[in-house]
Amino acid sequence: MQQIIAIDAMGGDHGPAVTVPAVIQTVSKNPNIKIILIGDQNILNEQMISYFDTNAITKADEIKSRIIIHHASEKVAMDESPTKALRNKKDSSMRVAINLVKNGTAGSCVSAGNTGALMATAHFVLKTLPGIDRAAIISPFPTISGKQVRMLDIGANVDSTATHLYQFAIMGSVLASTLDHIDRPKVALLNIGAEEIKGNEQVKQTATLLNQNKKINYVGYIEGDEIFKGDVDVVVCDGFIGNVALKTIEGVSKLVFVFIKKSFTSSILAKLAALVAFPFLKKASRQLDPSKYNGACFLGLNGIVIKSHGSANIAAFANAIQQAILQTECNIPQKIRDEVSKMLQESKI
Amino acid sequence: MQQIIAIDAMGGDHGPAVTVPAVIQTVSKNPNIKIILIGDQNILNEQMISYFDTNAITKADEIKSRIIIHHASEKVAMDESPTKALRNKKDSSMRVAINLVKNGTAGSCVSAGNTGALMATAHFVLKTLPGIDRAAIISPFPTISGKQVRMLDIGANVDSTATHLYQFAIMGSVLASTLDHIDRPKVALLNIGAEEIKGNEQVKQTATLLNQNKKINYVGYIEGDEIFKGDVDVVVCDGFIGNVALKTIEGVSKLVFVFIKKSFTSSILAKLAALVAFPFLKKASRQLDPSKYNGACFLGLNGIVIKSHGSANIAAFANAIQQAILQTECNIPQKIRDEVSKMLQESKI
Repeated sequence: MQQIIAIDAMGGDHGPAVTVPAVIQTVSKNPNIKIILIGDQNILNEQMISYFDTNAITKADEIKSRIIIHHASEKVAMDESPTKALRNKKDSSMRVAINLVKNGTAGSCVSAGNTGALMATAHFVLKTLPGIDRAAIISPFPTISGKQVRMLDIGANVDSTATHLYQFAIMGSVLASTLDHIDRPKVALLNIGAEEIKGNEQVKQTATLLNQNKKINYVGYIEGDEIFKGDVDVVVCDGFIGNVALKTIEGVSKLVFVFIKKSFTSSILAKLAALVAFPFLKKASRQLDPSKYNGACFLGLNGIVIKSHGSANIAAFANAIQQAILQTECNIPQKIRDEVSKMLQESKI
Repeated sequence: MQQIIAIDAMGGDHGPAVTVPAVIQTVSKNPNIKIILIGDQNILNEQMISYFDTNAITKADEIKSRIIIHHASEKVAMDESPTKALRNKKDSSMRVAINLVKNGTAGSCVSAGNTGALMATAHFVLKTLPGIDRAAIISPFPTISGKQVRMLDIGANVDSTATHLYQFAIMGSVLASTLDHIDRPKVALLNIGAEEIKGNEQVKQTATLLNQNKKINYVGYIEGDEIFKGDVDVVVCDGFIGNVALKTIEGVSKLVFVFIKKSFTSSILAKLAALVAFPFLKKASRQLDPSKYNGACFLGLNGIVIKSHGSANIAAFANAIQQAILQTECNIPQKIRDEVSKMLQESKI
């Protein structure tokens, strides 16, 4: 079945220079998708022409026929206040992309734009699913075992209550079982100690709620270092904590490779060793490459909204579009709606 | 001036096998210190004899004369409930070490034991300084710039209010200016976005308090990845968030080196490259070595309590003792007391 994806072409640190090539590459690879490319039509047309001019692309006309440019007169700046963007930018590329999901023209949308504005707009336009109070951002992370772990919320909400965290757990479990084909995904709560005595009030109350729900395979608390072990499939936390963890991961990965670089440039012998070691270090760093894991999404809304990293390159943005395709195929919002509705019938959330 | 340090010899994953050698090594290097080694006297005597028997140590008698074994009949288990430890283990090596600081026999104490129990006991026995509601754990971390950054609270408190965070900022600033000889240490608040609009209520209110205090060089919000840039000297956060960040740092460092190891063992060529690369990778990983940064301490108490990592090896535990020596030389609790008292006179905390 053909899918239609709305792309906020102006979002992100690089805008159309990244989004347009990523769209063309994705359309070339996926015969069943159509893209609505939203933004300044002059800029987008130029980018399209320039890409097709400088790259040898087979079936260029067929590909072009599946990319529709949709003009939007405004764009949301990366540092704009979410409230202002929501109130004043009714014709922003971001807003239009979400509107197209709302009215059913597109099955999903992707944006690398301002996270706060995207969240506020998506919440306002699409609304949350019945039984879900707040949408959350979920993202995959690499682990030592090789399989990935999904963590939510990584920045949509601060001051989450136990009920919110409980709903995040349900949504994360549905996503992992559907997208990753895991029978009963292991769901853990991020805490500061494995012992029952530790943790703050919200986390303790959430544990009680999860223990009562037999449908969720709740496996208990884990600490920050255990996220990367690969023992669990879903990690649940408040958005403030999840975002600190996310950014800490970025910071530490960078720090480690800076120390390695310093070590390999500290002498002539070191520089010679670097020549030999470089391909293998490169291979290791690729496994941690954010582009491989790009494609955080908002869970809990009446529609699919994929959030690409603002600094995403072409490969990373293409990966985010791929996430949109996958989630549409799996019909994630409907799956969450069904699961929550079943649980609501069985117990009070 | 001679310093006396009380050591909880039974604490940590390895107990006397680590603490006794670390103490002997520290005493050998520092002619002006005396150690009170607290724990099971039979075990400690055996460890002492065995270490002196198997290692060639000059001036052994002089060194022995500066290590006093103090018997304690109990020990706190690593997974024991802090409340139970506090209530039932009046003669634990941990409690006795803190008591010796309280009654002035020792100038400081060091433990690698159960963090929760150490915190609860130290709080109960030593009490917080005037104007400080809660003690916090502060620890140094490596940064890209080469200089270290100190972060607090990394796990003593959950659900910190703005007033608590504000007090942490004052204490962190005093510590950085005194121990690291920084004139006006740059103090930042850990948040989930650099923009004013982001963050939770506690963080926003703390920013207001810090902006009003001209004595603190408050430089604004930073995100998790910026901890490791080296642009700031002190990072302030709630203990839940700080502990997640701390554990995430450990987990990610491990993950990166596991990926590197996998890459360097993926083929015969890779294994050959590893032989060349190994010394330089080793050098890089040493810079991230927890033993180099061991020596978190509790700030805000009427006395110096150094918390070593539970899994510390001999070098790491010796480093923790070194921290105790340094903090006693600098008279940190008195410095915090003076600073807080000055600020209390100038404004309401």
